[in-house]
Amino acid sequence: MVTLITGIGELVTNDPDADQLLGIMTDAAIVADDTTIHWVGRRADAPDADRRLDLAGRAVVPGFVDSHTHLVFGGDRAAEFAARMAGERYDGGGIASTVGATRAATDPELRRNLIAHLFELRMQGTTTVEVKSGYGLTVADEQRALAIAADLTSETTFLGAHVVPAGTARDDYVRLVTGDMLAACAPHARWIDVFCEPASPNAFDGDEARTILEAGRRAGLGLRVHGNQLSAGPGVQLAVELGAASVDHCTHLTDADVAALAGGDTVATLLPGAEFSTRSTYPDARRLIDAGVTVALATDCNPGTSYTSSMPFVLALAVREMGLTPAEALWAATAGAAASLQRTDIGRIVAGARADLAVLNAPSYLHLAYRPGVPIAHTVELAERA
Amino acid sequence: MVTLITGIGELVTNDPDADQLLGIMTDAAIVADDTTIHWVGRRADAPDADRRLDLAGRAVVPGFVDSHTHLVFGGDRAAEFAARMAGERYDGGGIASTVGATRAATDPELRRNLIAHLFELRMQGTTTVEVKSGYGLTVADEQRALAIAADLTSETTFLGAHVVPAGTARDDYVRLVTGDMLAACAPHARWIDVFCEPASPNAFDGDEARTILEAGRRAGLGLRVHGNQLSAGPGVQLAVELGAASVDHCTHLTDADVAALAGGDTVATLLPGAEFSTRSTYPDARRLIDAGVTVALATDCNPGTSYTSSMPFVLALAVREMGLTPAEALWAATAGAAASLQRTDIGRIVAGARADLAVLNAPSYLHLAYRPGVPIAHTVELAERA
Repeated sequence: MVTLITGIGELVTNDPDADQLLGIMTDAAIVADDTTIHWVGRRADAPDADRRLDLAGRAVVPGFVDSHTHLVFGGDRAAEFAARMAGERYDGGGIASTVGATRAATDPELRRNLIAHLFELRMQGTTTVEVKSGYGLTVADEQRALAIAADLTSETTFLGAHVVPAGTARDDYVRLVTGDMLAACAPHARWIDVFCEPASPNAFDGDEARTILEAGRRAGLGLRVHGNQLSAGPGVQLAVELGAASVDHCTHLTDADVAALAGGDTVATLLPGAEFSTRSTYPDARRLIDAGVTVALATDCNPGTSYTSSMPFVLALAVREMGLTPAEALWAATAGAAASLQRTDIGRIVAGARADLAVLNAPSYLHLAYRPGVPIAHTVELAERA
Repeated sequence: MVTLITGIGELVTNDPDADQLLGIMTDAAIVADDTTIHWVGRRADAPDADRRLDLAGRAVVPGFVDSHTHLVFGGDRAAEFAARMAGERYDGGGIASTVGATRAATDPELRRNLIAHLFELRMQGTTTVEVKSGYGLTVADEQRALAIAADLTSETTFLGAHVVPAGTARDDYVRLVTGDMLAACAPHARWIDVFCEPASPNAFDGDEARTILEAGRRAGLGLRVHGNQLSAGPGVQLAVELGAASVDHCTHLTDADVAALAGGDTVATLLPGAEFSTRSTYPDARRLIDAGVTVALATDCNPGTSYTSSMPFVLALAVREMGLTPAEALWAATAGAAASLQRTDIGRIVAGARADLAVLNAPSYLHLAYRPGVPIAHTVELAERA
């Protein structure tokens, strides 16, 4: 079933060949089946199709790419959030509480919870979701988290190196992560990630992170890094040196970090939901863009530090707090995040790309930042229904 | 048709007789028809009803009371927003652009736009909406704005004194507002409001504001004031002196302003959506609460400075940026805003109050701030369908 989509008020293509960042078209139409875009062009030139969908002047943008989430978990941490808002500081310690709840959950419970969150994301315009493990921290619990995630998304990330679990010696845990746990998890994962943060007592220092990432690479996994969230640690430069696809957070950066990112191929993925919900200073996205770094935006959706699933909210924060224009923020939440996953089949609306579209209940993409908190973005569902 | 609502994970009653701010109950049930709450109590003690609604563990809170909106307008100001995010400063000048678009709109266009926005608010858990005029600024345009609004909400506010329109002498305009315009508008309005802001060249100073408010009172209208948004002007103390129901914005306050609010009966309505979307400093809600002032939260929904319709977003900002606890923020967005409208039939879930309920797709009210940007709040629709 091929659909001709018309009545598009403003089309953001992110076409890399366009003469402006977002590749905006007016009077545009799209022809797509439920998986692939066949044609994009002027409405007057559109080929015929099996059916038509008229959007009555609404804007269409690429479906959001949420390239950083932690959605295999049990329980919630609402009480910890309330305590933090009353003045407690975040140091990564609360992760242990979610580890306990996740281990205690059954497979069907974890699966149902993940599906509920993926549905929530999709209802808000997100069409690709990366999902990390990291709340199991045993071979069996990490493996099952990734098996559950891999059944629902192709972008799965092994994050056994989230924190050193209580009662385990650091060296023993690094050996486990790079040995039996990696062997059990690699078949279910595309990526490996590590929380590189010397400022957090249970996270990993630069040497440990290097050991873990190199082991992951030998096992065939692509590299991602949690770096420089709480302090200007070694994560960013390590990520660039190892050619990681993305280094995420980038909240505290030295000039040398920015220079390294500008000189390398690693995307800087910013997660302002985490700064919002931990009342921390936001990363300086403007500085990165001005240095020529490729910037992505993602939610970091997790029950501890950033329990938002809203890419439009993240985009609005990036404009309000991080110096991005609405156009740069939208690009970062779509094409930038796609780049952080080393994908060119998503994050853009061009012939041959996936038919991952978001429609806005608004005439222009500007409304994503102009209407903060308002659920104006929805996915376009093209699949045929029986 | 009377409904018994069960399966409530957590019930926020705002019962003023409870021993904690939100009057939280667990194992609670509600009996209501489509307009009025009949009974609230323990599930085990619930009387029978015509039908049952099981909420499967979701939290129920009073429907949000949005006590400050400007929803009779034409056009939008997305381009002005983008320019402001690129560094331009807000001084109130953009209002003229919405005045032009509003005057150019037909009555049905204004009505349809208002209905679309009221629907959007309702879908996000808001059950009472105050609507101001203020984009007409002629006798006929202000009157029709209020007539259109009064058909859809009982909380209508005459804001002819929004700005002095271009090409009109200040004294002439104050005479018009307090004369023919007031006479034409008062039958359609419950309240009168004035933008008292000496720092904005087209807004009104303290003497003008007093003249306008006193004329409104003589015409039978209750008093509201836009005060102290851009500078520590005379608005707050004037509002308290005249016994206004509410003074709104309160962004820049002197110690004398806080003392006046603490000693009077005027509610301080805070509108952090405006600070978010004009990149301004937030009001210090903590200071007001600690001084004993009654605080309300509202969206200020308007196409220029705060085009959010999301009370949960406003609540999350109040927690992140203004020092309120999640409980204080929810109270301000419900019972506090009801107080700013001098209503006790809304903003609380007690027998005899209006059946205005919001259900959260979450087990606790804490998730309103814990899950920023996520559309978890929805109204409970109790009306019988044919």
